[in-house]
Amino acid sequence: MARIVQKFGGTSVADVDHIKAVAHRVKREVDAGNQVVAVPSAMAGVTNKLVDYTLSIGGADDTGEYDVVVSTGEQVTSGLLAIALQKLGVGARSMLAWQVPIHTDSRHGRARIMDIDRDQMEKALAQGQVPVVPGFQGLCPENRITTLGRGGSDTSAVALAAALDADRCDIYTDVDGIYTSDPRIVAKARKLDKITYEEMLEMASVGARVLQTRAVEMAMKHGVRLQVLSTFADVAGTLVVDEDEIVEKELVSGIAYSRDEAKITLVAVADKPGVAAAIFGPLADAGVNVDMIVQNVSADGKATDLTFTVIEGYLDKAIRVIEEKRQDLGYSEFISDSNVVKVSVIGVGMRSHAGVAQRMFQALADKGINIQVISTSEIKVSVLIAEEYTELAIRSLHTAYGLDAD
Amino acid sequence: MARIVQKFGGTSVADVDHIKAVAHRVKREVDAGNQVVAVPSAMAGVTNKLVDYTLSIGGADDTGEYDVVVSTGEQVTSGLLAIALQKLGVGARSMLAWQVPIHTDSRHGRARIMDIDRDQMEKALAQGQVPVVPGFQGLCPENRITTLGRGGSDTSAVALAAALDADRCDIYTDVDGIYTSDPRIVAKARKLDKITYEEMLEMASVGARVLQTRAVEMAMKHGVRLQVLSTFADVAGTLVVDEDEIVEKELVSGIAYSRDEAKITLVAVADKPGVAAAIFGPLADAGVNVDMIVQNVSADGKATDLTFTVIEGYLDKAIRVIEEKRQDLGYSEFISDSNVVKVSVIGVGMRSHAGVAQRMFQALADKGINIQVISTSEIKVSVLIAEEYTELAIRSLHTAYGLDAD
Repeated sequence: MARIVQKFGGTSVADVDHIKAVAHRVKREVDAGNQVVAVPSAMAGVTNKLVDYTLSIGGADDTGEYDVVVSTGEQVTSGLLAIALQKLGVGARSMLAWQVPIHTDSRHGRARIMDIDRDQMEKALAQGQVPVVPGFQGLCPENRITTLGRGGSDTSAVALAAALDADRCDIYTDVDGIYTSDPRIVAKARKLDKITYEEMLEMASVGARVLQTRAVEMAMKHGVRLQVLSTFADVAGTLVVDEDEIVEKELVSGIAYSRDEAKITLVAVADKPGVAAAIFGPLADAGVNVDMIVQNVSADGKATDLTFTVIEGYLDKAIRVIEEKRQDLGYSEFISDSNVVKVSVIGVGMRSHAGVAQRMFQALADKGINIQVISTSEIKVSVLIAEEYTELAIRSLHTAYGLDAD
Repeated sequence: MARIVQKFGGTSVADVDHIKAVAHRVKREVDAGNQVVAVPSAMAGVTNKLVDYTLSIGGADDTGEYDVVVSTGEQVTSGLLAIALQKLGVGARSMLAWQVPIHTDSRHGRARIMDIDRDQMEKALAQGQVPVVPGFQGLCPENRITTLGRGGSDTSAVALAAALDADRCDIYTDVDGIYTSDPRIVAKARKLDKITYEEMLEMASVGARVLQTRAVEMAMKHGVRLQVLSTFADVAGTLVVDEDEIVEKELVSGIAYSRDEAKITLVAVADKPGVAAAIFGPLADAGVNVDMIVQNVSADGKATDLTFTVIEGYLDKAIRVIEEKRQDLGYSEFISDSNVVKVSVIGVGMRSHAGVAQRMFQALADKGINIQVISTSEIKVSVLIAEEYTELAIRSLHTAYGLDAD
């Protein structure tokens, strides 16, 4: 007997028929002798509608009320899924966050889970029942409803799995797993059987948005085995696990990309101590996250060019900051460019292998693709290139690292 | 300073713009120095949609889950109304039934309020805040959500008014008060400034569905002064109060009617003790409520005709029972007719005046309208007539009792 948390995304519970199908998925695990806790999202589109209501009133100053409104989507699907399970003869009952309770802090709209009381759920599980716990919501010390921020249902599921010492947390979604690259671009992309938490985090943060970063971090911290799989196809998914569980590590597990990047170059910045702080301090103060940074060594020791990237949506804000601080920064001009894409090769195997970055640079050079900025981490190499080369670069790298399916 | 509970019906909170308008209504009372508790219904149509969800899953065996689903409509409008009030500078916060708490029994889907804890609301009121409490919902001893049955928001509002010793409970709806008769039929119908609880109950039970009968009963029991008024028109409404508050009592306050009636006549029933019990016992067992009953004295002392009315929707069921019990009842034949209407004149003043019924019979006779069945109570005279005479009868009676507007 295993204990499994099954989380179902918005497209998986999009309407009553989908909820019935989800109930069959739960029943199958129960019939196999497993204990199941089900965690539904809101029906696809419902949370957006509820958020729109609050916005069209003028936006919620009191985010506590925002939470009262937007948390109802998951409450509805939880009640409906419990009914659907009962119709299949599976004992089930909904447990809202205030009933479990799932204790969070008081940061409405973006609360963090502090503690989950497992007693009610254990009692139901011991009676052979399926607790249906709505994702996304919690209860703060002031006895009010909180929500965990968009996509918080993944986090709810992982937190419940950790609290209940579950054997696995299955994340049902509309894709059937994690691929070596975006299948819309790379026809030969392969589904991965397993991937490490670290790789999944890098994949997510560079644009492969299947799992919430926060949920993966929590799973890694608590050693929760995650599985990403499709509600709609009856095939095995991808397991996200600890590195120890993967015996034969691939050199590179996947090629990810993000079009959501913009590049700024400050020309002829003074080459002296404190300049970087003078630039990136005000940007951080303005809430602009800087990603990649490159500073060349200056030829004359006096002035240098400084290039960095920001999320494209923050480009205007970043430019405003740079213009305001022109006097302090003392650059001669700045150049911005949002026609760029960040392409990354990711793999825990590269820790123990040299030459991974070199293979990337060579593959891109062979196609005549110019690299504008490079950044590396222990398990990732990222390059910034012109956006027009996106598909060519990704496909070439996919082949170069031997990831293509037969 | 007065303490007022303001309840807003589904059409009053039908969308975000309506909710903003409702917030202005609340603000006006607050600005006048009053303490206000606001009780919104769900947006018009939303509860039906939620009920449909549960039905299309196959109907909720576990009505606890039904309540989890359908109670979300009021939760949404409560959060939105709190936001809208805050936007107008009015301190407000939603308090769901489990937060107040509003304690009910455990009869999911049709729970009864047992006790309301006033502490949280008193605390908010003392701080100059408006508690926004969703109608229709409660919390049962098992710590689960309950609902009070359709139209339960009126009941919630009256119960809150009683618990908080409110000076008044204002029921905002899409009509601006209680009229002497249905304005769609009687162009000269007048809005009543005041009406007694007893009259309101009779008006409601014979088809003038503005207030839930249950809410009026509760208001009468606890002496809560009710006001029915329009969200959309800025005019005084109708006060529903104790008889003592009405100095000059009208002989007749209104003419009500119900088309939702059907008549059954059993021909040649044995005229002996126990026959009525033999007939109405099985009907009651089958859940069929019988309203008016007439039994003639038999000429020969052996057989008589027995006529009674039921709600039209129960006619088929009633006929089935009668056919099944044919042997026991020993009638020669039965006749059913659903082309009938019940017309009632209502007024507490008739307690102290004779001749009210006579005036009714005369007015109908003058128009050539045949009376099929008569029933009377202390403050009501009802007659059953052919449905085709509905409008003629109501208008004639309205004039006969001097109710016509100038």
